[in-house]
Amino acid sequence: MKKGSFALRILRINMSTFSSAYEELDDKNFILGNRALIAEYANLEIPAACEPLGDKNKLIIAVGPLVGLGITSSARVSVGGKSPLTGGIKEANGGGVVGTKMGKHGLRAIIIESQPSDNQSYIIFINKNGADIQPAGSYERMGNYELAQSLLQQHGKDIGIISIGPAGEMKMSSAGVFINDPEGSQSRACARGGMGAVMGSKGVKAIVVSGDGEYKPIVSDKEALKKARYNFHNTIKSNPQTAEVYPKYGTASAVMTLNEMGAMPTLNFTKGSFDNAENISGDALYDLITKRNGYGRHQHRCMQGCIINCSNVVPDKFGNPIIQPLEYETISLVGSNLGISSLDDISKINYICNDIGIDTIETGAALGVAVEAGLLDFGDITSFINLLGEIKQGTPLGRIIGHGAAFTGKAFSISRVPVCKKGQALPGHEPRGIKGMAITYSMSPMGADHTAAVTFRAPLDHGKTEGQMEFSRNLQVNIAAYDSLGFCMFVTPAVGKQPKLTVDIINAVFGTSFDNTFLFELGKKVLKLERRFNLNAGLNDKHDRLAEFLKNEPLPPTNQVVDFREEDYKRFWHDPDFWGEHLDN
Amino acid sequence: MKKGSFALRILRINMSTFSSAYEELDDKNFILGNRALIAEYANLEIPAACEPLGDKNKLIIAVGPLVGLGITSSARVSVGGKSPLTGGIKEANGGGVVGTKMGKHGLRAIIIESQPSDNQSYIIFINKNGADIQPAGSYERMGNYELAQSLLQQHGKDIGIISIGPAGEMKMSSAGVFINDPEGSQSRACARGGMGAVMGSKGVKAIVVSGDGEYKPIVSDKEALKKARYNFHNTIKSNPQTAEVYPKYGTASAVMTLNEMGAMPTLNFTKGSFDNAENISGDALYDLITKRNGYGRHQHRCMQGCIINCSNVVPDKFGNPIIQPLEYETISLVGSNLGISSLDDISKINYICNDIGIDTIETGAALGVAVEAGLLDFGDITSFINLLGEIKQGTPLGRIIGHGAAFTGKAFSISRVPVCKKGQALPGHEPRGIKGMAITYSMSPMGADHTAAVTFRAPLDHGKTEGQMEFSRNLQVNIAAYDSLGFCMFVTPAVGKQPKLTVDIINAVFGTSFDNTFLFELGKKVLKLERRFNLNAGLNDKHDRLAEFLKNEPLPPTNQVVDFREEDYKRFWHDPDFWGEHLDN
Repeated sequence: MKKGSFALRILRINMSTFSSAYEELDDKNFILGNRALIAEYANLEIPAACEPLGDKNKLIIAVGPLVGLGITSSARVSVGGKSPLTGGIKEANGGGVVGTKMGKHGLRAIIIESQPSDNQSYIIFINKNGADIQPAGSYERMGNYELAQSLLQQHGKDIGIISIGPAGEMKMSSAGVFINDPEGSQSRACARGGMGAVMGSKGVKAIVVSGDGEYKPIVSDKEALKKARYNFHNTIKSNPQTAEVYPKYGTASAVMTLNEMGAMPTLNFTKGSFDNAENISGDALYDLITKRNGYGRHQHRCMQGCIINCSNVVPDKFGNPIIQPLEYETISLVGSNLGISSLDDISKINYICNDIGIDTIETGAALGVAVEAGLLDFGDITSFINLLGEIKQGTPLGRIIGHGAAFTGKAFSISRVPVCKKGQALPGHEPRGIKGMAITYSMSPMGADHTAAVTFRAPLDHGKTEGQMEFSRNLQVNIAAYDSLGFCMFVTPAVGKQPKLTVDIINAVFGTSFDNTFLFELGKKVLKLERRFNLNAGLNDKHDRLAEFLKNEPLPPTNQVVDFREEDYKRFWHDPDFWGEHLDN
Repeated sequence: MKKGSFALRILRINMSTFSSAYEELDDKNFILGNRALIAEYANLEIPAACEPLGDKNKLIIAVGPLVGLGITSSARVSVGGKSPLTGGIKEANGGGVVGTKMGKHGLRAIIIESQPSDNQSYIIFINKNGADIQPAGSYERMGNYELAQSLLQQHGKDIGIISIGPAGEMKMSSAGVFINDPEGSQSRACARGGMGAVMGSKGVKAIVVSGDGEYKPIVSDKEALKKARYNFHNTIKSNPQTAEVYPKYGTASAVMTLNEMGAMPTLNFTKGSFDNAENISGDALYDLITKRNGYGRHQHRCMQGCIINCSNVVPDKFGNPIIQPLEYETISLVGSNLGISSLDDISKINYICNDIGIDTIETGAALGVAVEAGLLDFGDITSFINLLGEIKQGTPLGRIIGHGAAFTGKAFSISRVPVCKKGQALPGHEPRGIKGMAITYSMSPMGADHTAAVTFRAPLDHGKTEGQMEFSRNLQVNIAAYDSLGFCMFVTPAVGKQPKLTVDIINAVFGTSFDNTFLFELGKKVLKLERRFNLNAGLNDKHDRLAEFLKNEPLPPTNQVVDFREEDYKRFWHDPDFWGEHLDN
């Protein structure tokens, strides 16, 4: 019997035969979770050149090896496969209660294969007796929030729900996958890369995971784990970012910082700072939540047992929640980028996006392009909300916007579109203002995910190109490791530079004796697998770049451009000394 | 002074400075025309990774070295650059009167660079004094036919017109470039790959080339040319295909042949033969034209001096022309593919497409996908015409269809789309029915152009894979040579196997002493340049394939699939013995 962890099974569900089967995790994968498992199985099982919405793609839902062991922030759920947005591999992760519940069923991953021949929508129920697949019936085309409320009422509160909104059912490329938080709000998004569309293409409207699982953790050295967990938690509690800034302001703390750096996307990426930034800042959000009392609060959490509590609940003026949580990326892409300076309006759009089931980053960028196309004006909240209505209805215009920024640009023949060449919209860290993000956005196998490596807090001159490639690459490797163990990336400001804290946990749980290089080697392994998948899918160096205008159009107020040389980009992958192998085209 | 030819200049027009300048052709290019010149200049001057609709792409309009020498079918006009449809290099050619008129101005090519900062539309007038650029004014958004009539009235009949319709101005990816025929009908299409959108992105609505050019041909050996020309013409006049079939039936002669082979796209590529094929056959078209008398006639020609005369004029029941010409590709993609079995209806759609300025192949395929999306039904001519109206108006739905089949499939999240992976719709030679076409459509640097190499008349078993790669490759090389000398590919059934006929002409004109390998070497050179451009643009082996369903879905009535092995495809380029160099990724 394998030592350590307890989530050691995979549940395979075939949506053309409506059958399911459990299998044991391979020995070689027994420590791997989330992003690493997706990279492994995508390379093994998904033909890289397949149609992302066809029957050969798979939807892989994976958790980490540490779920259920009382370790903070370690129960993220990853959803992955081949992305219909980028054409490459994708892993998107979110919080919520599903990770822990999957662990209780011994499940490290659920792999959904094929698709129903009847083109109908189904709900998969997983409990201790196995999986049961039922027609979605009246749940079809239902918004995420109503769907979750209804499922919770019908099946009790002790369930985890993985669901898609109407956009996912319509297989739109901006569709995400949503998960319920501890209070039952279906608002934790595995947002990026169109994994909601892949889930829709499998005919799966929702997966309901019951809390009745009976698997128990098997820990190699309980005392060692206790000590390692204490050190891990203590470090997080002593770091100002994780102990003070995140709990108080959440990610909104970044608004004024990035605005002052000239790196907050504003008015469709024409400026790097927003005149009304103070109205949508971390302080403004803190004050709004504080003043309105009622349900609104700070220090909300997305996963049970989290000790960071970066989440928040934004209340309306009567104290009722509008959205939980409101994050920096939404504030910038839907706020400053669209000329919207009201946190209420931004929260409202966020709620609608979650309910339809679309990524706020991709949608904010697409709406900015829609302004450039002359469809509506910056700041026109009513028209923006009407456009979101068109997405929900699946009108031709709604389909255009719902497929994201690159598709919207193409539809209206606009070349100036804020995307990476793999076709994903740029998040709220403008790469002209923070040059390290140009490396992250262009080189990450995921496309323009800020979560792949956020560089703006690094001790670098962010206006210069020097050192950015190396910094972003090292950080991408490091983050990939945490992404592969089920951790929320928000532990990394505290523990990221002390790998021993994490390795001690792994060794205690699994009885292994990894040294401090374990994480870096794990991260490299994952990135290499992802690069291989992308090369096999036809994505190469030429696709590891950003939209042309970012090179040519200076961004006020810094008037910087993305000015890396081809060699700087190329060195990222063409460096066998770093990777230990050739990863050329 | 260079020997031979007389079109030895390039006119460069910069659309941001509204300036123009002549330059002499490089010595090394003095025999190259059309496709070869585009390949040369695209590689030299267009950054392969650029945005196709951005200011760094160029629109190259090129003719051949033999214009004005009385040689049949040698005045084709090629339009090229980076394609917004495929993302790779593109050369699309058409007949009409422009080639000869460019030659009279000594012009081998016109290269249009940059784009106007005011986003306005312009008309370029070229006469013996140079180029003059005027605002398009009331011509903006005008259909091709009305535009040409108006320009001919205003500027006299002795002009050549290169124009785009509203679709090109809206930069839609299915937009072509149109040229007037000897009777002033703006119906000769450089249809494929979205070159109309590139012209639109340069702010050029039309180029008017006057007939007042005074350049005279310089022929090295007039007697030798006379003899070579006689042999060339005589061979064409003695070949049944070029002397009998084409003049009588035009390309519509292929309908019954391909239908019987089970290779005519029918009902959105679900069948290979059409129940009502006889209604839209070459015979049916011949009878219709014959019976209606009036203006209608066979043996029409697109270029002065052509001795093949494959074109036709389809009259309505009052004898007035509906369309000139009606070609097989339109009959299959707009006819059988959409369940339309009336030549009148097909002609009507063809007219509307030409007027809007879109490719009938790409549009027919996109409309087939629209049927699959549930927007309308097969055979519903009124709804199809309404949809074309939406393209003209640029509504969101019109923009979707106007960007072609792949884009339409993506918008409606349909994976089953009849395209090559470079994103271009398949023409009317079903690759499951004629397997050599699978090689042509997948491997041609142009994407799915049937004109790159039509294999169905070859002495091969078209249901088997054996020998198809070699046959298509050799033919692609051969055709690329004729495409590079300004020839219409319809000379090749007669002269294609006797290179001496063409080489004698070249040697007589230029005083050269090429041997019979000249054409094959020229063709290889061109394909290699095109492959280089595509590799630099990010298109590689992975993009040299066809849509997945063609491998998996048997095509009735033959129930064949595209079943080439990866090695068969790969050998096409990865063959240094054939190409003389490595053309790997």
